[in-house]
Amino acid sequence: MQKGRLEAFSDGVLAIIITIMVLEIKVPHGKEALEDLLPLLPVFLSYVLSFIYVGIYWNNHHHMMHTVTTVNGPILWANMHLLFWLSLVPFVTGWMGENHFGPQTMALYGFIMLMCAVAYFILQRQIINSQGPDSLLAHAIGNDQKGNISTVLYIIGISCSWVSSWISGAMFVAVALMWLIPDKRIERSIS
Amino acid sequence: MQKGRLEAFSDGVLAIIITIMVLEIKVPHGKEALEDLLPLLPVFLSYVLSFIYVGIYWNNHHHMMHTVTTVNGPILWANMHLLFWLSLVPFVTGWMGENHFGPQTMALYGFIMLMCAVAYFILQRQIINSQGPDSLLAHAIGNDQKGNISTVLYIIGISCSWVSSWISGAMFVAVALMWLIPDKRIERSIS
Amino acid sequence: MQKGRLEAFSDGVLAIIITIMVLEIKVPHGKEALEDLLPLLPVFLSYVLSFIYVGIYWNNHHHMMHTVTTVNGPILWANMHLLFWLSLVPFVTGWMGENHFGPQTMALYGFIMLMCAVAYFILQRQIINSQGPDSLLAHAIGNDQKGNISTVLYIIGISCSWVSSWISGAMFVAVALMWLIPDKRIERSIS
Amino acid sequence: MQKGRLEAFSDGVLAIIITIMVLEIKVPHGKEALEDLLPLLPVFLSYVLSFIYVGIYWNNHHHMMHTVTTVNGPILWANMHLLFWLSLVPFVTGWMGENHFGPQTMALYGFIMLMCAVAYFILQRQIINSQGPDSLLAHAIGNDQKGNISTVLYIIGISCSWVSSWISGAMFVAVALMWLIPDKRIERSIS
Repeated sequence: MQKGRLEAFSDGVLAIIITIMVLEIKVPHGKEALEDLLPLLPVFLSYVLSFIYVGIYWNNHHHMMHTVTTVNGPILWANMHLLFWLSLVPFVTGWMGENHFGPQTMALYGFIMLMCAVAYFILQRQIINSQGPDSLLAHAIGNDQKGNISTVLYIIGISCSWVSSWISGAMFVAVALMWLIPDKRIERSIS
Repeated sequence: MQKGRLEAFSDGVLAIIITIMVLEIKVPHGKEALEDLLPLLPVFLSYVLSFIYVGIYWNNHHHMMHTVTTVNGPILWANMHLLFWLSLVPFVTGWMGENHFGPQTMALYGFIMLMCAVAYFILQRQIINSQGPDSLLAHAIGNDQKGNISTVLYIIGISCSWVSSWISGAMFVAVALMWLIPDKRIERSIS
Repeated sequence: MQKGRLEAFSDGVLAIIITIMVLEIKVPHGKEALEDLLPLLPVFLSYVLSFIYVGIYWNNHHHMMHTVTTVNGPILWANMHLLFWLSLVPFVTGWMGENHFGPQTMALYGFIMLMCAVAYFILQRQIINSQGPDSLLAHAIGNDQKGNISTVLYIIGISCSWVSSWISGAMFVAVALMWLIPDKRIERSIS
Repeated sequence: MQKGRLEAFSDGVLAIIITIMVLEIKVPHGKEALEDLLPLLPVFLSYVLSFIYVGIYWNNHHHMMHTVTTVNGPILWANMHLLFWLSLVPFVTGWMGENHFGPQTMALYGFIMLMCAVAYFILQRQIINSQGPDSLLAHAIGNDQKGNISTVLYIIGISCSWVSSWISGAMFVAVALMWLIPDKRIERSIS
């Protein structure tokens, strides 16, 4: 089985996820001043954060799939599992934005992001399993420090949401910034 | 005629179907506690079930198309017919979820799933017709036991919805679980 | 310039058009009997008709592009022009369905379908222009009888909508049926 | 890293952006006369303008990517940045249309268009950076007169929206017309 359609399908789903999130920014009716858009600011900010997250996932998915030549059943389903959690991002983004980053909305946002990270980790495992421990990806990932730090930051973010939304937010932004730099490890291993 | 665009178009439609279903999980307005999400649980569960179903269809479509080299008119239209029934999945999923798995909503859900299965069977027939009875796919499918069992389970699920939603639900979940394992028959035949 | 991305973009737009139409079939709230779906029947029927129309356009686009090797500016814009009119199909479909095939809604439906046909004709012209009068497509199309008959049927359908919705509907269904058979002319010319 | 998936993902996002804009043209309920559609005219006109804009971006993206063979991290993120601003087009289009081209809605429309142009410029820079100053694209673009004129027209359009919506509108239409002709510079350089 070749990876072409898995990439195409994942690209399609990610493109739709990233674009339908914008539908949560509802056009205000009968209001034509710029200040009427101010109440939309939290929704907009949560959109920006999630856009960056989905962009990071697409980017890393792109890099990871570069090391893959053939896909098997477990990889197909691990990929579908990742897409499932990512598909819930528009919902939690909208809920968090509409409720002005209320504590429980941020905890759920962090939880879904954590599940995406876990699903990504499982997909990575399946690919390494199918390629053997000496594979390009296995060397590129190493002990997956970035992945581990993300998990810790997500858990801090979720736990602290009851204390302060600002700490949670800072954690989630920190993870995004950490990953904004595309995964040099794979690029380095390839060359 | 080559299969590239048929695959690309099907991937696009399936990616959109799987993603717009999530739009049925409506963000609750002005409610920021996790318990406010409880009423969404039936919609969420029906989303999970349909996500798995569409994932299975994509997966099996992927496998089946692997055995195809050229497509003709009947295959193009049999594929479009399959996409038609699949396009109704978001509607029946939303209706079933919003009405907390009411008997008639489950019967309709099962009916649409049955029609998807019939359309998939027709597409399979058209491909085998165009390849001849000694084709890879014909051998891989054999007497199509899995397809027949699904049909029976769907019909039980539809009929029993007036007796108990639980039996219907169990039938639909059973079909999904049965197909979760990708179609080894084709993979085996290829190798 | 190669045709790959033009096909991919057109496939994407057509896949989305065909799928968002289903969003016009709104899930009825708090109604769980099958008879509650009866008021949705006109919306469903108009969805079926438009699904077939968009399917036909995708099919014929697929066939026509098969004869193309390189694309130029006029072809790119003629294609975009076609996609523009097709993008209005979900709107007129929803309007016609919601108003139970009222005369003026059917006239507008026919008008948009006519404009799609005109746009398709222009695209066809641009391709033939770029390939020369001895091209495969020019021979395959010939005097474009099917295209001409469609135009006449559309105009009858639009004009008669003030007399009887049934006549209009019959015209639009007739055009769809006529085109359901994929364009054998191109397939024949290729072989 | 190859450009294939970057193109596929961008095509997907652009296809969805161009198509979900049409969802802003809401089907009027219980109104079946053509004159009931008159209030939708501003929304329709703003849709036409934005459709042309997104079409231009797709077209030029297509042309620009033609000169690219490999993509690196900065190009991937510059592309994502462009898609971000383009993803806001449906929102500003809907807001401008619903408020009948009110001054502040037009200023915001112009601002988002300006940001798209800036993002496109940054992407262009990143590609030229990765290819060197003697690259095909660098020669094709030259001193980027068209880009500079657009920027000036956008700024005039934004500033004048407080004076007259007509001037702003004229500026935005002028930019669109100027770019409707695909970028001959690249086509010429290639041949």
